[in-house]
Amino acid sequence: MTKLAVFGAGRIGRVHALNAAAIEDVSVARIVDPIASPERDALARCLGAEVCEPRDVFADPSIDGVVIASSTDTHAELLIAAAGVGKAIFCEKPVSLDFPTVVSVAGAVTQSGVPCMLGFQRRYDPNFRAVRDRIASGAAGRLEHIVMHTRDPAPPPVSYVVRSGGMFRDQAIHDFDIARYLLAEEIRTVYAVGNCLIDPAIGEAGDIDTAMITLTSVSGRFVQMVNCRRAPFGYDQRLEALCEREVIYVANRPQSDLVVASASGFTTAPPMNYFIERFADAYRLEMEGFIDLLRHGTEPLAGMREGVEAQRLAEAALASMRSGAPVHLDDGRWVPDAV
Amino acid sequence: MTKLAVFGAGRIGRVHALNAAAIEDVSVARIVDPIASPERDALARCLGAEVCEPRDVFADPSIDGVVIASSTDTHAELLIAAAGVGKAIFCEKPVSLDFPTVVSVAGAVTQSGVPCMLGFQRRYDPNFRAVRDRIASGAAGRLEHIVMHTRDPAPPPVSYVVRSGGMFRDQAIHDFDIARYLLAEEIRTVYAVGNCLIDPAIGEAGDIDTAMITLTSVSGRFVQMVNCRRAPFGYDQRLEALCEREVIYVANRPQSDLVVASASGFTTAPPMNYFIERFADAYRLEMEGFIDLLRHGTEPLAGMREGVEAQRLAEAALASMRSGAPVHLDDGRWVPDAV
Amino acid sequence: MTKLAVFGAGRIGRVHALNAAAIEDVSVARIVDPIASPERDALARCLGAEVCEPRDVFADPSIDGVVIASSTDTHAELLIAAAGVGKAIFCEKPVSLDFPTVVSVAGAVTQSGVPCMLGFQRRYDPNFRAVRDRIASGAAGRLEHIVMHTRDPAPPPVSYVVRSGGMFRDQAIHDFDIARYLLAEEIRTVYAVGNCLIDPAIGEAGDIDTAMITLTSVSGRFVQMVNCRRAPFGYDQRLEALCEREVIYVANRPQSDLVVASASGFTTAPPMNYFIERFADAYRLEMEGFIDLLRHGTEPLAGMREGVEAQRLAEAALASMRSGAPVHLDDGRWVPDAV
Amino acid sequence: MTKLAVFGAGRIGRVHALNAAAIEDVSVARIVDPIASPERDALARCLGAEVCEPRDVFADPSIDGVVIASSTDTHAELLIAAAGVGKAIFCEKPVSLDFPTVVSVAGAVTQSGVPCMLGFQRRYDPNFRAVRDRIASGAAGRLEHIVMHTRDPAPPPVSYVVRSGGMFRDQAIHDFDIARYLLAEEIRTVYAVGNCLIDPAIGEAGDIDTAMITLTSVSGRFVQMVNCRRAPFGYDQRLEALCEREVIYVANRPQSDLVVASASGFTTAPPMNYFIERFADAYRLEMEGFIDLLRHGTEPLAGMREGVEAQRLAEAALASMRSGAPVHLDDGRWVPDAV
Repeated sequence: MTKLAVFGAGRIGRVHALNAAAIEDVSVARIVDPIASPERDALARCLGAEVCEPRDVFADPSIDGVVIASSTDTHAELLIAAAGVGKAIFCEKPVSLDFPTVVSVAGAVTQSGVPCMLGFQRRYDPNFRAVRDRIASGAAGRLEHIVMHTRDPAPPPVSYVVRSGGMFRDQAIHDFDIARYLLAEEIRTVYAVGNCLIDPAIGEAGDIDTAMITLTSVSGRFVQMVNCRRAPFGYDQRLEALCEREVIYVANRPQSDLVVASASGFTTAPPMNYFIERFADAYRLEMEGFIDLLRHGTEPLAGMREGVEAQRLAEAALASMRSGAPVHLDDGRWVPDAV
Repeated sequence: MTKLAVFGAGRIGRVHALNAAAIEDVSVARIVDPIASPERDALARCLGAEVCEPRDVFADPSIDGVVIASSTDTHAELLIAAAGVGKAIFCEKPVSLDFPTVVSVAGAVTQSGVPCMLGFQRRYDPNFRAVRDRIASGAAGRLEHIVMHTRDPAPPPVSYVVRSGGMFRDQAIHDFDIARYLLAEEIRTVYAVGNCLIDPAIGEAGDIDTAMITLTSVSGRFVQMVNCRRAPFGYDQRLEALCEREVIYVANRPQSDLVVASASGFTTAPPMNYFIERFADAYRLEMEGFIDLLRHGTEPLAGMREGVEAQRLAEAALASMRSGAPVHLDDGRWVPDAV
Repeated sequence: MTKLAVFGAGRIGRVHALNAAAIEDVSVARIVDPIASPERDALARCLGAEVCEPRDVFADPSIDGVVIASSTDTHAELLIAAAGVGKAIFCEKPVSLDFPTVVSVAGAVTQSGVPCMLGFQRRYDPNFRAVRDRIASGAAGRLEHIVMHTRDPAPPPVSYVVRSGGMFRDQAIHDFDIARYLLAEEIRTVYAVGNCLIDPAIGEAGDIDTAMITLTSVSGRFVQMVNCRRAPFGYDQRLEALCEREVIYVANRPQSDLVVASASGFTTAPPMNYFIERFADAYRLEMEGFIDLLRHGTEPLAGMREGVEAQRLAEAALASMRSGAPVHLDDGRWVPDAV
Repeated sequence: MTKLAVFGAGRIGRVHALNAAAIEDVSVARIVDPIASPERDALARCLGAEVCEPRDVFADPSIDGVVIASSTDTHAELLIAAAGVGKAIFCEKPVSLDFPTVVSVAGAVTQSGVPCMLGFQRRYDPNFRAVRDRIASGAAGRLEHIVMHTRDPAPPPVSYVVRSGGMFRDQAIHDFDIARYLLAEEIRTVYAVGNCLIDPAIGEAGDIDTAMITLTSVSGRFVQMVNCRRAPFGYDQRLEALCEREVIYVANRPQSDLVVASASGFTTAPPMNYFIERFADAYRLEMEGFIDLLRHGTEPLAGMREGVEAQRLAEAALASMRSGAPVHLDDGRWVPDAV
């Protein structure tokens, strides 16, 4: 029996805990969340888990791994603590909103040698993964450029915005990661423009709600990204990979299979809403990936390096938007690996 | 220069006249229509044609062929007259609403040896033809069954209904023809049910507006047809051919390439409306087929035999609906050919 | 805690057992299956259930309800036994392959007054249900006709065919049920033709693999059904409800959201395969419906009456195909209700 | 009768000549092309036009207007000459590959007061125009950003590339124009990256085959453009306008309405190929617009100003790509209007 502790009993913590508990011979034995909510207690009861303090987890040698899904400001400390006592780690992105901290934590965790995986669940989504596999198979020919759309169904509350690190670190980071995943190389140049076109309150909080980003890879291939805090029809999460012999698309999945036809045309349902639902399979497969890492050392699709590099691109995008000029990433890459 | 006379300056006559005139070295030299409308005269002027009487056409040896697009009750007489003076004939279906007349006229025209083609334009439509070609190529494997939908955008006026010969002879006849075209064999059993569900005035006029028809071919393969005088979204003209290794569909073509997405979903445009527009290419290619027949003797996709057999199925459907029992067509097929 | 016993640990029994166990305060306490397979034992272990004999279930007053998902030939006996000891019943269709037995068992169970639900899961599918709701809301206007396609991905083995009761009782029965569900009235006339076009072995076993069925309702509305044991692309399960102001379609759901575009066109994924996956939501909602029936007496979407009437249509279709004539169902309807 | 002279008997000249001649009371009376090809002579014959020299056109007071569809290097001279003798002008874009020349010719033509229209046919395409109209109607709410894809089916020959002015002036110019058309305001910032990823011969000729462009409008709204010399599936010409309450898409139009379904999925036809076919309606409506301008002074959708401003964006994109930095267009706009 593999025993896990889950930090954070919020929306995403609950998803991970239930997915982990559904895997054969996995038990979620501890739930850690400082907020004593009915949801936390119900989750613990349903899993047969004990609610406890972080120190109880780290002091308990029977706990094999930790799932860190607590608030972002706790990630760095929990990562260091878990690495210190040799527990396998699954941690939601980002490691920290402060990039130097990301780099130093990544270095420390890597040095410790504990198995560690970061929550870039989109890599585990069967659609995005199939794009990668199809390109890797050679069937499509060389990948030349990528176009990605990420639009939320509605702007988040300002209370979320102010703690999010901004749209690049919070939302676009997944697209930066997928860009690297599909290109299978690093980015040399980042250009970003952004504005607050949807919700003035977001602008007053110092963030943007609409951004256009262009990436140029080291070998000179391109990525174009649209990031937005609202699509009128719901959650928009699409990708288009133009290769030599094929274009491969990831389309949105409609909420239903109904089509209603009338004098005004044929209407299909809006896309699945929202990421918890759209990426349900991805979250499940990601947790299976973590258990495989923990048990068999199977390389995860996203580790510390992916966290550092995706966030580096977010930092570069922010710098580009602020300066009005593209940012060049000629060096200073992935240090922890090199240590 | 090939010289033609066109009988009928209505909607479909105009289509044929303009298509013919656009073919190299074809001249529409005569327009015959007893109704002295401004449309008739404008058409003649635009084509540089003379408006005249039927006898002028048949007496003029310079006329190579006739296009019969006048009212149905004139077809038989014009066919006989044209065959009598050896002019190539293109005639709109049906030859007559009276089936014995269809058979006897078909016999006479066939006997005369004049080149003759009937207006089953759907055979010339690039989509329907591609279905036939794909099946014929063997790529799809054996055709096992066909499902067809034909729905008009709105019920015709009662004045049209009473002269139409009823929905089977007027509308379903095209589907009967396509069934034979794709199956490439004859039908043994016809079952039809019909009702007046849309427009009570059609029922009062003795016709139906909705029918379901099932055909069984001589070799035991099936065709299912929906025929209807209204689809809420416009003109519905679809086909689905289930073969051993593929299903081949003919879909409706939207009026535009716009998609509008909002909270209520993704809306595409209604289909092209109506047959003159949807089958514009088919009418053009059909007329080119007639000129090829006239000039080079190229076998048309639909001749007298197709007219007789499609109408025989319409007669059978009517008999089936009236009796409540399937009609078996064990013999009595295509006589004129055999004469 | 609601305690259930599940009869049958095969594919569908497993689905029902897991769905039931996932409902709050429901326990699957007994598994009954005469075949001592590893799958049966693993299912029981996973649920914390005891493997036992039927008599143990019926003798145990702590069992609130039974889920009958065993082989068809056991249904009638188990239904009678469960009704005799007052246990709520969920039973997979069909009640029996012998129609008089269906009628008499339906009568007995209805007389007993135990809550009873039949496994027409398609009524619980969110798409099919939405069609019903949209029609019921009046938005679409009067329903005029229905076209349904049910095609399996591949012919079943002959060993299955010979025990299935034939394609009408085994496959088409779901479509008959949906026809009644959407029309909200009974059928007066059934016409069916069938043939063995796909797998000669099915024909040798006395069954068909392709059928076309036409239903006429009491009020004169129509249903056209295609039933087939193979679609080249996989599982085909579609519906088209033509109403006065709208056509409502249930489309197939693709297996993935990938589109691959190349010189040969744009290719989307085949539909979900097979019914266990396609109707996963329906099975879950159906089991919740059973628990609601058991706990609160909430009327299920399909009870004994639905089983009798759908099967009556299957019997009529078989009779029509054999006789070559339509079958009229003027009387002899739903007896048990009336007792 | 309106009499026109057409300069250039190549592909696009032929389209304009035939479209013009099909308009009521319009005659294409002169064809000017220095290359004595059979195509030129056939076109003239078919139109009943005389082949002549430019001076014959300008000296003939019976010619009401000119259609300039000759090679780009002749446009400026012909525009000046036509304006000098007061003939209405339709001119294909670009006015010149040399931007100062564009500006000075635009000034001269504008000063002359002759009616003048430029060949941005996409504005006349019913789909693109419907996007504009829908936005203008207010139904969609404020336009926030645009994403455009323009990909040719295959790279042009190098002989074309070297005379084209480069991909920005040749291909992207249409997208720049549509951006201005839909935003209904000017662009402040242009960022472009480009590379030669498809055909090395294009790179050797000093051009690119793939570009990503980001535009920021004066009011801070965004446009993202992909421009490419090849799409594996054919001609890709799409647009997505994200507005407050709707996203409006222009989709590609498939070549046929066939769908072929097999074990590998559902395949629809590639898009219409190439611009002459895809924009056939647009070219027809554009020429009607020119005749309306000539006869009634109706404001065309694109005049000299549109030519200057779209080309200014192409120049800015080129400068941005070369410098690696965004180009700001703070002033120096549309001079001719202001003169």
